[in-house]
Amino acid sequence: MQADEQEIRDLVATWMAATREGDTATVLGLMTDDAVFLTPGRAPMTKTDFAKAAEGQARGKAPKFDGHSNILEVQVMGDWAFMRSRLSVTATPPDGSPAKRLDGHTLTVLRKDEGRWKLARDANLLMPVS
Amino acid sequence: MQADEQEIRDLVATWMAATREGDTATVLGLMTDDAVFLTPGRAPMTKTDFAKAAEGQARGKAPKFDGHSNILEVQVMGDWAFMRSRLSVTATPPDGSPAKRLDGHTLTVLRKDEGRWKLARDANLLMPVS
Repeated sequence: MQADEQEIRDLVATWMAATREGDTATVLGLMTDDAVFLTPGRAPMTKTDFAKAAEGQARGKAPKFDGHSNILEVQVMGDWAFMRSRLSVTATPPDGSPAKRLDGHTLTVLRKDEGRWKLARDANLLMPVS
Repeated sequence: MQADEQEIRDLVATWMAATREGDTATVLGLMTDDAVFLTPGRAPMTKTDFAKAAEGQARGKAPKFDGHSNILEVQVMGDWAFMRSRLSVTATPPDGSPAKRLDGHTLTVLRKDEGRWKLARDANLLMPVS
């Protein structure tokens, strides 16, 4: 495996662990300043939108997320890369109501920023599991 | 605008026109052999899956699709590129029931294949408009 691919896999592992621990600062450090997040049925989110949503989560107003990512493909082309993964997430609401499971695929574009891989564009196609 | 970006914009225009006209051969010629299509709540589709779905459409068993794509971003890195767009689609069922509108964003990875840009990975986050 190339060093770049390993660094990208490490980035995903760090992202998942930081999300689980509510460590917003670490997650924000893993994305480019121009990052864009796409999800079904919602407007695209910028890094600022992401930070606001994470703030709400830290204050206990939003669900807590715990996810597992199975990376299916990584392709590196110079300072850019893309990745596909299958993602499963458990969202636990703060009000004690039952946790919800989400499952689906992702397509992510990454960029090397001052020698470190960061998430730049992300399409997250997760849907609730019934 | 770079020549590559113009070629990618032309590819999208050709794709939309061929889809409208039910010209499956043209659409299949605009994707790489290893193309993967991601949509919310469904398993990923390969080129073979795509061809089968288009066959059903040609036989009048599936809805007819008419779409409009607004390209928001194109980034070219050598023989690879990615693109984001806002897509609106009208799906007209063959049984005469009312047409459905779908709207959302896409994230697409493209690859230059023997000098021609082709669609290689596509995340389509369209959802029904209520």
